[in-house]
This record gives sequence, structure tokens and C-alpha cells, in this order.
Amino acid sequence: MDIKQYMEQVGLQARSASRAMVRADTTRKNRALERIADLLVQSMDLLLSENQKDLDAGKKSGLDAALLDRLALDQARVEGMAQGLRQIAALPDPVGEMSDLNYRPSGIQVGKMRVPLGVIGIIYESRPNVTADAAALCLKSGNAAILRGGSEAFHSNQAIAGLIHQGLADAGLPAQAVQVVETADREAVGELITMSRYVDVIIPRGGKGLIERISESARIPVIKHLNGVCHVYIDDQAEQKKAIDIAYNAKTHRYGVCNAMETLLVAEGIAAACLPPLAEQYRQEGVELRGCAATEKILPDVVAATEEDWDEEYLAPVLSIRIVSGLDEAMEHIHQHSSGHTESIVTESYSRARRFLAEVDSSSVMVNASTRFADGFEYGLGAEIGISTDKIHVRGPVGLEGLTSQKFVVLGDGHIRQ
Amino acid sequence: MDIKQYMEQVGLQARSASRAMVRADTTRKNRALERIADLLVQSMDLLLSENQKDLDAGKKSGLDAALLDRLALDQARVEGMAQGLRQIAALPDPVGEMSDLNYRPSGIQVGKMRVPLGVIGIIYESRPNVTADAAALCLKSGNAAILRGGSEAFHSNQAIAGLIHQGLADAGLPAQAVQVVETADREAVGELITMSRYVDVIIPRGGKGLIERISESARIPVIKHLNGVCHVYIDDQAEQKKAIDIAYNAKTHRYGVCNAMETLLVAEGIAAACLPPLAEQYRQEGVELRGCAATEKILPDVVAATEEDWDEEYLAPVLSIRIVSGLDEAMEHIHQHSSGHTESIVTESYSRARRFLAEVDSSSVMVNASTRFADGFEYGLGAEIGISTDKIHVRGPVGLEGLTSQKFVVLGDGHIRQ
Repeated sequence: MDIKQYMEQVGLQARSASRAMVRADTTRKNRALERIADLLVQSMDLLLSENQKDLDAGKKSGLDAALLDRLALDQARVEGMAQGLRQIAALPDPVGEMSDLNYRPSGIQVGKMRVPLGVIGIIYESRPNVTADAAALCLKSGNAAILRGGSEAFHSNQAIAGLIHQGLADAGLPAQAVQVVETADREAVGELITMSRYVDVIIPRGGKGLIERISESARIPVIKHLNGVCHVYIDDQAEQKKAIDIAYNAKTHRYGVCNAMETLLVAEGIAAACLPPLAEQYRQEGVELRGCAATEKILPDVVAATEEDWDEEYLAPVLSIRIVSGLDEAMEHIHQHSSGHTESIVTESYSRARRFLAEVDSSSVMVNASTRFADGFEYGLGAEIGISTDKIHVRGPVGLEGLTSQKFVVLGDGHIRQ
Repeated sequence: MDIKQYMEQVGLQARSASRAMVRADTTRKNRALERIADLLVQSMDLLLSENQKDLDAGKKSGLDAALLDRLALDQARVEGMAQGLRQIAALPDPVGEMSDLNYRPSGIQVGKMRVPLGVIGIIYESRPNVTADAAALCLKSGNAAILRGGSEAFHSNQAIAGLIHQGLADAGLPAQAVQVVETADREAVGELITMSRYVDVIIPRGGKGLIERISESARIPVIKHLNGVCHVYIDDQAEQKKAIDIAYNAKTHRYGVCNAMETLLVAEGIAAACLPPLAEQYRQEGVELRGCAATEKILPDVVAATEEDWDEEYLAPVLSIRIVSGLDEAMEHIHQHSSGHTESIVTESYSRARRFLAEVDSSSVMVNASTRFADGFEYGLGAEIGISTDKIHVRGPVGLEGLTSQKFVVLGDGHIRQ
């Protein structure tokens, strides 16, 4: 296979399909989503047997247990995919929304219309459910999608792709509105992220290594999520119970997620009261605590934190703790070490909450809430294709609206510029 | 001068100043803008004498008359700059605007807050007034700016920069919130567009060559305006007088601007009635007409258009005309040849207007209005830093809002994720 030529063909087809998707009304898009959901459940045997091929190959090539688990489909996971599609069908369609339509002194009316981005390239790793999720979000937002999953999920993804094509066609939409790249060759990724004529935006989903590689080589805008070094700051005007609940939840609710807290900042005025009971709760959960020198004075058995700890996304039962003089030092630490994902302040002080909200430059900024809320479902987006830690276009959880843009519309009645 | 080290310093200062700018309230930012405006007018002699150095050097190095004209400052132009600053001071401040704040089932409130992008790098060519305009837009939107003007305007830009610094300092803002790069060395541009640690977005302003070079090498998101191949489509259900007025205005109101029409598409059902009187008006203005074979049958003296004509941004009294069967063929032509800037349909048909608005994928889409309206002032943005023909973040005229983004804010009262 000539990869360059093949990808050129994929791009051309996607661009063409994207024009049909712009015209597709909400009913038709929803019909396709519902139909694909039905087909997934009806094709359970096919999906599980194709998935088995990937699992067998994975075992043979020595994939570790965690990767094999992510790769595996079972009845519940397939039903989960179908349910996800039905949830996306139930969401409001953002395309065509008009806003801010006002008359101007010249007599024209000027407003904005929400429109699909066009063609979205999504590059992801081993989970086959991403194929259905990502396709559904692109489809509902009126975009064409080119999906490139991990080579270890090749057979699973191709089987899902076949059902998506059938569902699109059954609803009268072009099957090529969702294309799953039919080669495991890495060169295909290189083409995908550079063919700016056909692809409008790239969304990588996966580990930091994948995302850095793609951002480095892409010649197309990338919406990316690098990492989540999230902070909770317990102010000395915090209510102690809220502080402990939030700091405990933000670390221990789940460890391997980007919105888990990695560093706890505590105002020196409240540290002695707050840290011992909190540390006791962490210890019961087996969380390893690493602390600054001041923390060690209050919690003698913490490990001494190194400079590297402040920049580390543990994704594990490990927490670094730093005692700061107050809000300014906390915000300075966040500015130096945050990855721009999510930060939360615990305080009863109105003024400090207001400052934290305004001045902390992260995609989600919270007052008296656990960082674990930073999530498309919790925010009411219905679903998310990822969480953007970029600063332009979209920040935080990316739902349907993040896959659209706004163009200007001008309505006149023969108006000319004087 | 070690350019790399110098630019690193500039970047570091900009990042630091951007944090002070986030905290700056509207009054303080406006005070700085008003103060800079005053200083520009008070320093007329200095500005004109520094500008004279650039003009002398430009003449010596053989700059053409058009370039020298763009470079030249006089009393009116300096007063125009000052007025521009005062207009920006009068605009509403977009920073901090909160929207869509709603309670979620979990009990948290989730909304969005508009925030500055951070540090904006602007690269432009010879006009010194861009230095003041761009600085003012960045300042008002709470961003720090690194400006890199054309080397031929070096002395003018440095003189303006000095006044900006003084105005910022007088208002209690960091002078380094606006830095004008103090070297004409091209290596500085290379550093600016790759130091992603310090710069959040690059906006090139200038000719297509400059913008392509920068987009190609940047490692930072670029908001760009490549070119304006704008179309007017006269539908066979157009009212003839409106059609002729709009097509005439869109071409002849000004030639060297990106929102001028470059190609006129005419439905075959109205071409014979519409084109002869329109062509007569164009001829009186000295507009050269190039047409497709069908056009030549109606207007025998047009030049035959070549394939290249359909992709050409003339920026001159030249117009290409193509007769199409109707709306679908017109939209297909636009899809193939438009640069995504601005397109307008002239029609009395509600359904066709609705389709054109929904399906044409350009930054501005118009009904019964001249493409010349595609402009930040005409749209009510107050001022613009450029017109984006990109698809993500911002499309069309970029005003203050385009220099901001939205982060999520979450308000809880001890809420944790269950």
C-alpha cells in the first residue's frame, strides 16, 4: 500500500463528506447515531470475536495486563458504547445556532452562526470504545472524522468502523463521514497530521509521549491535553471539614485520572490544625505523602519532597504537600508548577475566592469543590472528546461545542458600503 | 547582541507582565490607553523626526513609493493613532465576563469566565501605526504583547514603544506588558515564533509571503489571515438593482483590500439581463473584466479567464466573472476557489439564502450585502487586529474577544465527587 496516496484519498473523501455533514439536519444525524448503537449491540458476537484477535495478538507480543484490560471488549463495554451513542443523540445540536444578531448603523444585521470545524483527525491508543465515542461526537457536531486508533486494537476498530459505516448509510449520510484508517503503518499518522488541505484540526488522545510527538510534527492546529498537575489550596480562612473532605476526595477518589490532585498547598495558619487529621485519612488509604520542610515539622513521617515532585503527575497514590504563607505564595506555586488543568481553593473568604478565580490561569478554576469535578459529564457537556490544556479555541472539557466554531453572518437588503 | 538570550529575556518579562495584566482592572487599562494617546500627540516632533530617519534610510535603500507611503507618519496619522487608542479605551472590557453559570445535579455551579490568552506575539510589516493599534488591543484585553515590526520602521516603532512604556508606567502597569523587539535581526522572529514557554499565540500581519513563512515555522498557535478571494453570487431570483449595486460596490469601493470581491458568479437565468449594465459601470471605473466562455457570449469584449484567475486575489481593478447554472454550482465554485474569507449571495429567495448561509464555509457569509462590510468596525467590534481565515478559535474580524479565551469556573461549598 502506498501510504501517502492512501491517506490523500482518505483526506479527499473526508473533505467531501464534511460538506454533506454540514447540510445534514439534526434528525438525520441522530438517526445515524441510534442506528449505530443498535448495530453495535446486534453485532456483539462479531465485535467480541474481532476483539479476541487483537487480544490474542497482544498477549503474543507481550502487552502488559493494564493495556490488555484497556483493549478488551465484553458485553458490558459494548453496551456502554451503544449507550454513549444514544446519549450523544439526545444532546442538543450546536450546529447552526445563531447568536448576537444585531442591527448596525449601516443597516446590516451582523451575528454569528455556529458551524462544524470541517474534518477532525483523532489519534488515540488502545481503547476501542474511543472509536465509537469520537465518531459520535464528530458526527453530531457536523464534522467528518478520520480516526487512527492504536495498532493493537486494529481488528476491533475495523469491526466498529464497519458498523458505523452501515449506520451512516442507513440514515442517508455518507459512510465516509467517519473513516478509520485501514493501516497500522505509522507513516499514516505522519500524513494525517500534515495534510492541512484536508484536515482542520487534530485531537490526540493518549499518553504524554504520544501527544508531544504529534504536537511537535503537526502542521495542523492541535487541541491537546498534555497533563494534569492539579492543585488544591487550603486557605487559612477555610472551613476545616470542607478542606479535609475536598483534599481527600481530590486525591483518593481515583488515582489514575488527570483531574486528581497531585499537590496540596496549605496556608501556614491552618496547616497544624488541618494536616494531621487529613494525613491520617490518607494513610488509611495507603497514600504516600511527600512534603516540604515545613510539612515535615507537622507530619514527621512524610518523605521529603524534591524539586521534581512539584512538577510530577503521579497518577498514583502519592501526594506532595507544601505549606505556603498564604494566597499569593499559593498562586505563585501554581503559576510555576501547574499544567494549566484544574486548581481549587478552599476558603470562606469572598475576596480571596474572587482573586483565585480571576488570577489562576488554568482551564478549570474552582472554589470549595474537588478537582475531580473537572469533567465533561459533571459540567453538563453530555460527553467529552478530551480535556484541553491549550489556551486558544477551547479550554477544559471539550464537548460538542468545542468541535465547532463561529462564522459571521451578515443580512442586508441591497446594502453597500458607503 | 545574543539574539536567543535577548528574546528569552523578552519572553520572560512578557510572561511576568501578563500576570500583572490579568489583575489590572478596566479603569487602570483605560487610563494607560488614554495616557499613551496623550503622549503620542504631545510627542509629535519626536515621532516625526524618528520617522524621518526611517524614511531617509528607506529612500536610500530604494523602497518603492507605496512602501514609503505606508511607512510615513504625519500629524494626521499620529492623531489617528491617538484616536484609535481612545476608541479602544471606550470599548467594553471582555475580561472576567462570566456566562452560562448554572447549577448541576451534583450541587456545584459551573460557568465560563473570559480570560486573556496571556502573551501575544505580533509580527508585522512597515506601518508604524500597527505598533500603537496592536499594543492597545492586547493591553485592553489583558494580554502582554511582544511586537516585531518591519525593520524599515525601526526608529518609528522604537519611538512609539517608548511612549507606550511611559503611558503604562504612568497608569501603574508594568512597562514590559508591551515590548517592541529592539533588534532588526531576523533571528528574533525565529525565536519569537518558537518560544512556546513564553508566547501563547502569534498573529502575523502582512503579505501572504510573510504569513506563510511564519505559519510554516511557528511552534505556537497562529491566528492568520492568508488571503481574500471573495465571491458575490447573483442568483436568478436576485432583484437586479440590488445585485448591480452590491457587485459594483464589492469590486470598486476599494481595490487593494482583502474584502473586495475578486470573482463574480452569476446565475445563467439572470446573466443576460444583469451583466451588460454592470459591465458598463465597471468599464467606466476602468475595471478589467475576465470571463468564462458563457460570459464572453454576453460580453464579447471580456478577456478569457484562465483557470488561475479563479484562485487569484487581484487586489486591483480586475474582476473575473463566471456564469453558473444556479446555487449548487455557485457553492461548488466557492468551495473550490474561495480562501474562506467572505462570500455574499444576492437573492430574494428565502430558501436559497438560508442554504447559502448554512453551507458556505467562510469566515463571513452574507445575504444581499457587499463583501466590503467584512470589517471589525462595520461589525461593531470597535477595532480589529486582523481578519482570521483560520477555522479554529476565531473566524473573521478579530477584536478584543478574539484575544481572549474562556476557562471554566466551578463554585461549590465543600462539594466532593461521589
